[in-house]
Order: sequence, then C-alpha cells, then structure tokens
Amino acid sequence: MAPPAAIEVLAESDTATFTIPDRLRIQTVAKRRAASGKLVAGIAAPADLEAYKGRTNHLHKSAAKRWDHRLSAECKARQGSRLKNAARYLKTPGLISLGGGLPSSEYFPVNEIDFHIPKDFSAPNANGNAVLKAGKHDMAEEKSLYDIATAFQYGQGHGAAQFLRWLVEHTEIVHDPPYKDWGCTMTIGSTSSFDMALRMFAKHGDFVLTEEFTFPAAVETAAPMGVRMVNVGIDENGMLATSLDEILTNWDEKARGGPKPFLVYTVPTGQNPTGSTQTIERRREVYAVAQKHDLYILEDEPYYFLQMQPYAGPDAVDPPAPATHDEFLKSIVPSFLSIDVDGRVMRMDSFSKVIAPGSRVGWITASEQIVERYRNHSDLSTQGPSGVSQLMLFKLLDEHWGHAGYLDWLMHIRKEYTERRNVTMDACEKYLPKDIVSWVPPMAGMFHWMHIDHSKHPAYGKKTLLEIEDEIFMASIDQGTLLMKGSWFCADQEVDPSKLFFRATYAAAEFNQIEEAIKRFGDAVRKSFGV
Amino acid sequence: MAPPAAIEVLAESDTATFTIPDRLRIQTVAKRRAASGKLVAGIAAPADLEAYKGRTNHLHKSAAKRWDHRLSAECKARQGSRLKNAARYLKTPGLISLGGGLPSSEYFPVNEIDFHIPKDFSAPNANGNAVLKAGKHDMAEEKSLYDIATAFQYGQGHGAAQFLRWLVEHTEIVHDPPYKDWGCTMTIGSTSSFDMALRMFAKHGDFVLTEEFTFPAAVETAAPMGVRMVNVGIDENGMLATSLDEILTNWDEKARGGPKPFLVYTVPTGQNPTGSTQTIERRREVYAVAQKHDLYILEDEPYYFLQMQPYAGPDAVDPPAPATHDEFLKSIVPSFLSIDVDGRVMRMDSFSKVIAPGSRVGWITASEQIVERYRNHSDLSTQGPSGVSQLMLFKLLDEHWGHAGYLDWLMHIRKEYTERRNVTMDACEKYLPKDIVSWVPPMAGMFHWMHIDHSKHPAYGKKTLLEIEDEIFMASIDQGTLLMKGSWFCADQEVDPSKLFFRATYAAAEFNQIEEAIKRFGDAVRKSFGV
Repeated sequence: MAPPAAIEVLAESDTATFTIPDRLRIQTVAKRRAASGKLVAGIAAPADLEAYKGRTNHLHKSAAKRWDHRLSAECKARQGSRLKNAARYLKTPGLISLGGGLPSSEYFPVNEIDFHIPKDFSAPNANGNAVLKAGKHDMAEEKSLYDIATAFQYGQGHGAAQFLRWLVEHTEIVHDPPYKDWGCTMTIGSTSSFDMALRMFAKHGDFVLTEEFTFPAAVETAAPMGVRMVNVGIDENGMLATSLDEILTNWDEKARGGPKPFLVYTVPTGQNPTGSTQTIERRREVYAVAQKHDLYILEDEPYYFLQMQPYAGPDAVDPPAPATHDEFLKSIVPSFLSIDVDGRVMRMDSFSKVIAPGSRVGWITASEQIVERYRNHSDLSTQGPSGVSQLMLFKLLDEHWGHAGYLDWLMHIRKEYTERRNVTMDACEKYLPKDIVSWVPPMAGMFHWMHIDHSKHPAYGKKTLLEIEDEIFMASIDQGTLLMKGSWFCADQEVDPSKLFFRATYAAAEFNQIEEAIKRFGDAVRKSFGV
Repeated sequence: MAPPAAIEVLAESDTATFTIPDRLRIQTVAKRRAASGKLVAGIAAPADLEAYKGRTNHLHKSAAKRWDHRLSAECKARQGSRLKNAARYLKTPGLISLGGGLPSSEYFPVNEIDFHIPKDFSAPNANGNAVLKAGKHDMAEEKSLYDIATAFQYGQGHGAAQFLRWLVEHTEIVHDPPYKDWGCTMTIGSTSSFDMALRMFAKHGDFVLTEEFTFPAAVETAAPMGVRMVNVGIDENGMLATSLDEILTNWDEKARGGPKPFLVYTVPTGQNPTGSTQTIERRREVYAVAQKHDLYILEDEPYYFLQMQPYAGPDAVDPPAPATHDEFLKSIVPSFLSIDVDGRVMRMDSFSKVIAPGSRVGWITASEQIVERYRNHSDLSTQGPSGVSQLMLFKLLDEHWGHAGYLDWLMHIRKEYTERRNVTMDACEKYLPKDIVSWVPPMAGMFHWMHIDHSKHPAYGKKTLLEIEDEIFMASIDQGTLLMKGSWFCADQEVDPSKLFFRATYAAAEFNQIEEAIKRFGDAVRKSFGV
C-alpha cells in the first residue's frame, strides 16, 4: 500500500524541516519570541496560540478537515462559559472588578517556592543543584513571566499561557504539523485525555480499533461507556495497516453488532505491552488506511522520546547514541502528527515518562476544532492542570533548561533507558531457555514482550493457555520476581488469546537487580516446563 | 416539618461531639496517630481509611444505605484495574518487580523543593517565612512520611495515603459523619467532582434539583449530558424544603418530560450567587424531604469556612469573632454530612477558596460504596491530584500547621472576609439607592446578591427585564466596575427570571477599592433609572 501523495509533497517541499539543523529550529523559536516582545499573561489569561507558532502561514499548508460528523452529541452541545463572556470587559482601563469569584492572592499562604534541579544529569546527587526560585509577585516585580499569584489562581482549561507557549514551540520543533490550524491544550495526563476523547467522539455501542494487545486502562476506560475494542493485528512493527484495512473493508454491522468504527487508538512508539515501534513506513500505511476509511487517530505517545539505537547483542559494541540535537531529532521516528496533512490525529503527550508521573500534566495537539472542543470540556470538568505543577515545569523547561536543555535531558534519559534495555536483553540471552521463550529486542519505551511457546509445556492439551500462564506467573512469584501476564493486555476481552506472552519492564527495578530478576524468571519458566 | 428522629438521637447520644472542647478532638487525633505507629505508605500505596478514623465503631452508628438503584450503568460497570491486582504480590519479601511500568525516581529531575510559608498570617510579608523542605528520598532517610520520589510517582486515584489521612482526620474533626462506613477520596477539584457525580448518578433526560439561581458551571456541566436543572425555590436562608417537597410530590413525568428526580445539587453555605446560607433548621428540613423522597444530595461546599458573624451595620461595633478553635467550630453551621444518618450525601470539599484554586486538590466524603465507585472512576480518568500539589499541602497542613494550625488559618481568613463583607455592606448602605436596590447581608462566602426593582425603571413595560439588566450592566462598565448579571445564574435556562439581580464579589478586588466600585455601581443604577 503506497503512502498518499500529499505526504510525499510535504516531505519534498517543507525544506525548513528536513535540511536546516535542528539547533536552528530552536534558535528560530528564540528569535520569534524576541520579536514578539514580552509575554504578558495575567490571571486566567486566554492563550494566543497562533502567536506562539511559526510557519503556520506557509502557503502549502491547508486547513484541517472538519470533524462535525464524528463528534458526539455531548461534545457538540458544549458551549463556552457564560461567565467567561464577561471577562472581556476586564480590559477596560481603570475598571474595578466585583465580577469573578477569585480569591485574592493575599490569601494564598505561600510566599516562595524553590525548586532544586541537579546541575549534572549523570550524577544528580554529586555536583550540586541549580535553585529555581518562584516568588508570589514575580510578575509585578518583573522578575519572571509567571509567579505564585498567577499559578495558584483559577486558570483557563488550556493551562497557563506562559507554559502553553513552551509546549506549542516544543511541539513545532519536534513535529511541525503539516496543516495550518493545529493547536495544543494542556491536559491532566493522557488517562484523562483518552477518557475525554471517548466522550468527544464515541457513543454507547461504538467500537475503537486498537492493537490486539493494548494498554489495559484504555480498555477499562472504554468498557463502562459501552465502547468495545476491536483487535487489529500486529507484528514486530506494531499495528498492521493491512489488518486495519481488512477489518474496515469487511465490516459487517449485523455480525459485529455495531457501526463501522472510525476511532483508532494506538501507541505507535514502544507500545504497551509489546514494546513494538511503528516504522515511518508503517505509520504512512496506517495513515493511508485512515484516509481511505475516514478514521480519526488517537496517538498516545508517552514513550516517544525513549527511542533507542538497536540492540547489538551481548558481546557487541553499542552503536553510538545521537551526539547533537539535530542527530537526536532525526533519529526518532516521525510521529503521526508530523505526517497528518488532514488534521485527523489527536496526539496525546505526557510528562509522565520523561519528567514525572506525579506532575499530572500533559497536552494534546490536534486541529483547532478539536482543541476548542477539548478546552470547552476541560473548563467544565478537569480544568487546567495543577498550577503548582505548571509553575514547576515552567521554571524548569522554559526558564532553566529551555528547548535545548530539554533535548539534552531527553538524550540523557534515552541513554539511560538504552542501558537498562541492553542489560535486560543481555540477561535474557544468558538466562532464558530460548527454545521456549522468544522475543524481539524493543527499540523504544520501557517494555519487553516475551512469547512463551506453551505447546512445549508438559500440560499442553490438558491445561488451557490461561492455566499455563497462571502457573508460570505463580512460579515467577515463587522465584521472587513479578512480570505481567500477557492476557491482561488483550484488547478485546471477549476473544481468548491464542499465544502466551509475558511483559517485563526495565524501567522500575534497581539497575543492578534487573539481571537477577530475569534469571529468576528463567528459572521459573524452566521449573514450569520441567526443563 | 419536623426533623427526623434519627437526628435527635444522634445529637443527644454523641456526647463526644457536643460537649468535649474541640481542642480535645484535635488531641484525640494526635493520640490515635501516636498509638497507631508510623504511617508507612510507599509508591502508589492504597490507603487504609478505617485506620485513620476514630469513633467509627460506636454502636449507635449504622451503615449507610446502598445506592445501587440510583447508580448509572456506566458507574456500575466500573471494575478495579486488572494490573493493580498484581500489585498485592509486591509485598513478597525479596521480590524484584519487572511488573508495573513506573519510571525510576532517578529520572525525576528535582532533588528538593522548599516551600516558604509566612510565619505571621496577618503580616505575610513582614515577619519572615518558615521554610518547609521536601527532599527526594526523605522517606528512606526517615526525615518525613512523604517525599519527592513518592509524590512524583504514579499514585492511587484516591491520592497519597499520607495526605488522605489528614483529610479524613480533618473531616472527622469538623463533621463527624453519623454513620459507620463513611470515607474520603481526593479529587482534582469540585468542578470535576460534579462532572464525575453526574456520570455516576445521572443519565440522559434526568433532572437535578437545585437552587433557582445557581453556579452556572454546574448547569453548563449537566446540559451537554442531557441533564436539566429543576428550579427549587429559595429565600434568604437558601433552598426551601417546602418547595423541594412540593416539586417532588407533584412531579408529573409526562408534563415534565422526564422521570422524578432524585439528585439534589446544593451549595448550602454562602451559596453562589445568592450568598445565602441554610440554617441548621433549614438543612434538617431539606434532609427530611430527601429522606421522604429517597433523594441523594450533592453538597458542594467551597465557602463552608467563610462563615461570618452577622453584619451589625455601618456604625455598629462588630460582634467579636470566635476566639478559640472550639468557638470557631461551634460557630459554623453544621453540614449536611454531619446530619447524614443515611449516607445519602456526597460532600465536595475544595481548597480553592481557603488555600489556592491552582492546587487543583479537593476531596469528597460519602459512604464507602460511593467513594469506592468514585475511586475506581478516578483511576481511569482524572487519576489522583498532582503529586506536586499534594506534597505542598501535606508539608503545609500535616507537617507544619497540623489540624490546629489549619483552624487558625481558617479563623484568619474568616476574619479577612468578614472585613471585606463589612466594607462592602457599609458602601452599599452609603451609595446605593435603597428604594431601587435591596439586599440581605451575606453570612458566608464571597458573594453579595442585590435585587433591583426594575418596575421602577423608566422603560419598565417597554423593555424586557433582560434588556433593563443589560442596560444596567453596560452602565456599570461605563462607570468602571464589573458585576455579574443575575440572569447568568438561572438554573433552568428555559425559564426567564421574574426578578432582576446583580451579583458582586468582595473576594477579588483590592480591599481599598471595594468602596469605590460600589459607589460606581450606585451611580450606574441611578443613571439607568434616571434618579
């Protein structure tokens, strides 16, 4: 299946993206900021997204498709807030507001917050900290563009304009969406974003297309809304475009008991649980199928920046890591967002895997129509993320690291995860019975997915797959290690898995305990299989 | 309408609540903590609510009613997370987990956070700060029960056990719920809680009973879900139990176009927008109606602690503020939660008006059945609140202020709001045309609700109420002040208001500008009415 022409045109014409070093893209952002003057964004200030974006007016970019035919009744019914209409009068010179019920910042009992950030990534406890100070009235005192008085106040559903600007810039540096009217809005994390997306797009009885093994929370979020998952086939490069096309082409409403689906939920990079990463060719194939069947893609990418060089083998020298920002950005597989000429992708980004899950800050990128719907919804449900979290991230990412420093950080943790992955693979080579356990070394993320050939189990034919899986699970606990059962990740809970898998993560354990844990798992498998 | 017998019994028998000074209640909590030993709650630890509660085993307390007949299909379908079932094996001694995909705290790029808290409430910038330090590994180093490594990690939907304990204790000190199986779970704020509550209890076509003027965000949250508000009559003491009873007794499904409602949404204290506060007698009447018609009450109480002594008049000496914790706790009207013998109340608490809106941390209190449903829902949507916010609040409220210090803080801001209210009332007495504008001085909260007798307007009979309202609104803007139109607060958007109101808040403006703003509003009214 050939990628659609529009993508080729973009790749050829948008020379800015593909030939100018990425350092310059960061510098372009810096220049744009300097030219646009000081950002003044007071309490609950609406963000001016277009002002934060760069190449949006390029003539080759067209506007996103409209999605009115896909939005739920609930989503279409969402209006802006009545009270917020009054906020436009706040700009009247000399006006004293007795309008909005915002508590005075006098009553926020915090005068200053200091964030201590390790100066040296590779020795976070050795070389001291940079101390980022946030004062209560730093904006009035012209010390900063953001402060406690603003961050601790009510805000817009899209989050603080100050930090949203950084997110928009970052998104453009990394993805440069190929249509005109893209935008971002902050979220309280991608679990919530997926919940919101289902409320925006799906109705009871709908189906969502996803990898046949998928993030269980996605299934568990959808099920109570009466939304079921459809298994799309996968290989070592993730979701199969051919499987997707086949399911949709042959969809039988009666046999399936529901309408032909149009929502795709996918984790293209370091997929959970399989660890697979879609190549750019695969992404283009999937996107072409999405165009053919008018699909909308929910691109969930928490592991996007944990892409690695290939695993070379237990005795091989590691291929070198990217040395510059340019090399780093070129080394990562382009996102669906970056090939989304139609505006049919809502990308969900998260700080959970690259800064901290507890920040509960993420963002989505999509066409303005979708972002506006999301924002209206946020205003009346989740609201923007915690101002304390936003203040911390703004201090760290905008004022301290900047875009360049953040890429340095991402390159650092990429290296760390690569080492963890390599140690895990080395241990698997060494300790697992390879006639029973097989795997493809992951190229991204934090998960290692192992196939167990249960036909070699002594109880094969007498015990079910799930019984054998449970036996291995319990044997692992007995040996002193915990892995996750593959069956817990089945997308369609009504279809029993035909193959037996286990998922290991190399993210959480102490680095020097990973080998021992894999050894224990190997012992457990041998015990269970009697070898 | 007499209060139901069960409430009388409670008030008489629970002597602990009504005769022992509240200082002792706080001390009781301290003793319980000391007796229960050190709280150890690691990463994503489930909270043991019962262990944080005191008098739960009193024989006179019975279990809450079950609400299975009121829960939505979505709510009933929510299961616990499959992966979390595996977490129970984490307690196995010596186990190395390759299970949960939690990033190692090595990759949280923050080593320490210092929160600077004013030592002196009444002069927050004068007498220096206490500096509350949170380190990355304070728990391992035995410096604190909570640290960055834990707060920045994934957590439970109910929030961190460390801080949830404080919330449970606070709830018991203030409300002492009169049934056995109550519990709390953290929220990301009450806007989200109301949204979640509607998903838990309501379905498309349902009605919710509420004050005829209400918080517009509540109406705007409900409407897209196909849930309509029913106007319950109000007086200066808020929702009228008689009106509630009448509506329900005479409910005609056909005429109304929907089933008899069972959900009540109410802001009993300092109601938005009317500023009214239900007396304890009124609350008991409303509760009795709820029992009669098997209603479930959503008690939204952001302004609960902003209760004030009565306004004495422009030239009168203010009645003294409560001087002790005991006096303070006795001075506030008991909550619905505190008279909820059946477990038919979900109380929504918020830090937005008493610490900072930007924390995005609140909590609900309800029976365990409801709390469990909420928690399951949170795990797959909002998740717990920001760990950065929780860490700040834990440091401030648990480690620094404690329960006693928090009551001191609440007494301080109560005093501040009382002064703001008084200045506003003084200005109204002085500057408003009292033959046109009338009001009842609010006893709580941040809102002042003024009735405008539009029958005295020169265009009365020619212009509609809404046109006259808009004329006054625009005249106020011209004079340099912004107030909110009463019509923006109509609960049932299909019923035009028969009276004209404006809402002013005394929370947000600079203290010394309130008088001027009211003067301008007076000028605007006079101009519009030609007097």
